[in-house]
Amino acid sequence: MGLKLYYASGACSFVPHSSLELAGASFEPSMVKLHKGEQRAPEYLAINPRGQVPVLVDGDEVITQIPAIVLYLDAQFPEAGLLPASGVARTRALQTLAWMNNTVHPTFTHVFMPQKFTADEAAQKAVKAHAVEVYRGLLGELEALAQKASPWLGGDKPGALDAYALTLLRWGGFAGIDPNSLPATWALVQRFAALPAVARAMERERLELNVYKG
Amino acid sequence: MGLKLYYASGACSFVPHSSLELAGASFEPSMVKLHKGEQRAPEYLAINPRGQVPVLVDGDEVITQIPAIVLYLDAQFPEAGLLPASGVARTRALQTLAWMNNTVHPTFTHVFMPQKFTADEAAQKAVKAHAVEVYRGLLGELEALAQKASPWLGGDKPGALDAYALTLLRWGGFAGIDPNSLPATWALVQRFAALPAVARAMERERLELNVYKG
Repeated sequence: MGLKLYYASGACSFVPHSSLELAGASFEPSMVKLHKGEQRAPEYLAINPRGQVPVLVDGDEVITQIPAIVLYLDAQFPEAGLLPASGVARTRALQTLAWMNNTVHPTFTHVFMPQKFTADEAAQKAVKAHAVEVYRGLLGELEALAQKASPWLGGDKPGALDAYALTLLRWGGFAGIDPNSLPATWALVQRFAALPAVARAMERERLELNVYKG
Repeated sequence: MGLKLYYASGACSFVPHSSLELAGASFEPSMVKLHKGEQRAPEYLAINPRGQVPVLVDGDEVITQIPAIVLYLDAQFPEAGLLPASGVARTRALQTLAWMNNTVHPTFTHVFMPQKFTADEAAQKAVKAHAVEVYRGLLGELEALAQKASPWLGGDKPGALDAYALTLLRWGGFAGIDPNSLPATWALVQRFAALPAVARAMERERLELNVYKG
């Protein structure tokens, strides 16, 4: 099949990265160093003109966007249970995946890269401060979902939602949000990170799980 | 089945609204008047605690988030071809749907509701002006997709991507972007709006297609 994943350490590409490991897929990991601007290099833009990670390459096919990649991997590796297989559980999971991707994730972008939203430095500061509070509220919604996890966000198997939860909670640390303030999510994320497959992805990205600094 | 759609005039709920019409589904349309704050009424929050449209209700099941609703309707009405059925075309369509939902749509939110991103009025002005230019660039990316439509964005059948394109291009008019500056998208959107099924949704929402004011 020839699967290749372009990812960046700590980015949302952790979702397909850990999904590939959970599925036991054979794939070539290729790290893109965002701090060195490798995502804007001509050879990377030739793969993804938007200059973003993740990109999943499968033979001739180039796939971007977390929901599309997750649905693709779920179809390729149905036995992995990256998403619930069917019914209400699947609809619920797709709804949560979309929300993480279109609401929680973009809110963190305002915290991490306020310069994407205005060139005015005072306005950037205002946008960032506001986004931290919105992000705190969104992690509160995630906490309510984690409280109902049985035992994973998608049900009986660890999967894409847990991987996104890990990423979003970890980003919370950079926003000054203590993971201990969200105990159900923090417990779920720690359990997820301890799975051997997930630990391989964590190790490859050299990820520290808790980046909150008091 | 008992399908019910909560929608607002001109909102992104037009995507499931026109999809239901394209599928020939029997459903109960329920308009939520956002300008009257009906989305924050206790009875609406009981259905969707996030106070957003769209919401699709199917019997006991309440479904939110455009990608989840579109995938649900596509599974219920496979013959409608709201998304390409399989293969590379489907993956490509899911990728575009995710991008519209997580990038283009949230960018317009900065134009339309900059107060969601900061309470500071000067910062709101800066955020809005910046977002108009980003939105213009994103509609340029949509134009490149429309140039390759054959004849619809998902291929041979009109579907969810065309409905989202109509919504996003229409919003462009509110951002001061002339649809005539994006001729392939504008032609596609006009063809889409003229389909009898889509015209029914337009009529129910009392939508003017071109809201650009010179």
